[in-house]
Amino acid sequence: MDCKEKILSTRDDIFNGKIFKVKVHDIELPDGKPANREIVEHHGGVGVIAVTPEREVFMVTQYRIAADEMMLEIPAGKLEKGEDPYDAGMRELCEETGYKTDKLEFLGEYYATPGYCTEKLSIYLATNLEYAGQHLDPGEFLSVSKIPLDKLYEMVMNNEIRDCKTAIAILKAKAIFG
Amino acid sequence: MDCKEKILSTRDDIFNGKIFKVKVHDIELPDGKPANREIVEHHGGVGVIAVTPEREVFMVTQYRIAADEMMLEIPAGKLEKGEDPYDAGMRELCEETGYKTDKLEFLGEYYATPGYCTEKLSIYLATNLEYAGQHLDPGEFLSVSKIPLDKLYEMVMNNEIRDCKTAIAILKAKAIFG
Repeated sequence: MDCKEKILSTRDDIFNGKIFKVKVHDIELPDGKPANREIVEHHGGVGVIAVTPEREVFMVTQYRIAADEMMLEIPAGKLEKGEDPYDAGMRELCEETGYKTDKLEFLGEYYATPGYCTEKLSIYLATNLEYAGQHLDPGEFLSVSKIPLDKLYEMVMNNEIRDCKTAIAILKAKAIFG
Repeated sequence: MDCKEKILSTRDDIFNGKIFKVKVHDIELPDGKPANREIVEHHGGVGVIAVTPEREVFMVTQYRIAADEMMLEIPAGKLEKGEDPYDAGMRELCEETGYKTDKLEFLGEYYATPGYCTEKLSIYLATNLEYAGQHLDPGEFLSVSKIPLDKLYEMVMNNEIRDCKTAIAILKAKAIFG
């Protein structure tokens, strides 16, 4: 059986925001029955785990209104439409932490919540860091800290990291650096 | 500086779907300036990594229309409003794989994409598996396979796993089982 869902028609005028759009597809299921699929359309995001020669990681703490809490995350941001995730990673790392690098290593591309949302998150590893100056976007309020990789790994294993991309980045960095 | 964003008013009639709702908050930033925040409201999800005594993991493959691809994921599902993630994990594991267990071990609660979405994903580890019969929801089409944990870990490290919760679950299970 072909498991792909056939799109019969789409309502795409539901919400057209700055961060995401909402569409609803009327579809035909693999067994021929009708159903619909609610979709959040998002251009994608990027996160960068930046590790110093002393095995410390640059982390940002910011208030996230969707979570209604201060969250500890790797530097991250939203792609502009059509933007290359690598370029966005370079930009966000420098804007948020003030550090730049000459090269990012790809740690994978992940769907945040593939049941209804098109957002793909690309994750990169940055080393060879050099200070260049922090440039936060207007309306962006965050604080930067340096935390040992081994401490962050312990926090993931103790369920104290609450952001998906951040947990993946820390676990993969720990596997790479040992 | 208090970094919390103050909600001044909310438009909550934008979209009221079966899977998520959309709201827009008009807020005051920490520096007193106005802004707005687009929010996807979702009741949360659960994922279960089920590991056999032979270190094999039950995985599901299904078409995800938001990704427009077949995806390899741990068994997972959406919470009903107010549902306990533990109970939902027990239910989804059995419905999707046909296997039940007497106890789930908590591997953390993660925001899928905390910039704009309220969805929290709880992840659990299941062992002591016993066959009880698969019961898929109407409209749910997926195939179940058993894949060695070490093979899945290799796939995560090679960037071949494309779902956030699945990558976290595999990396944490590998850290636990060695």
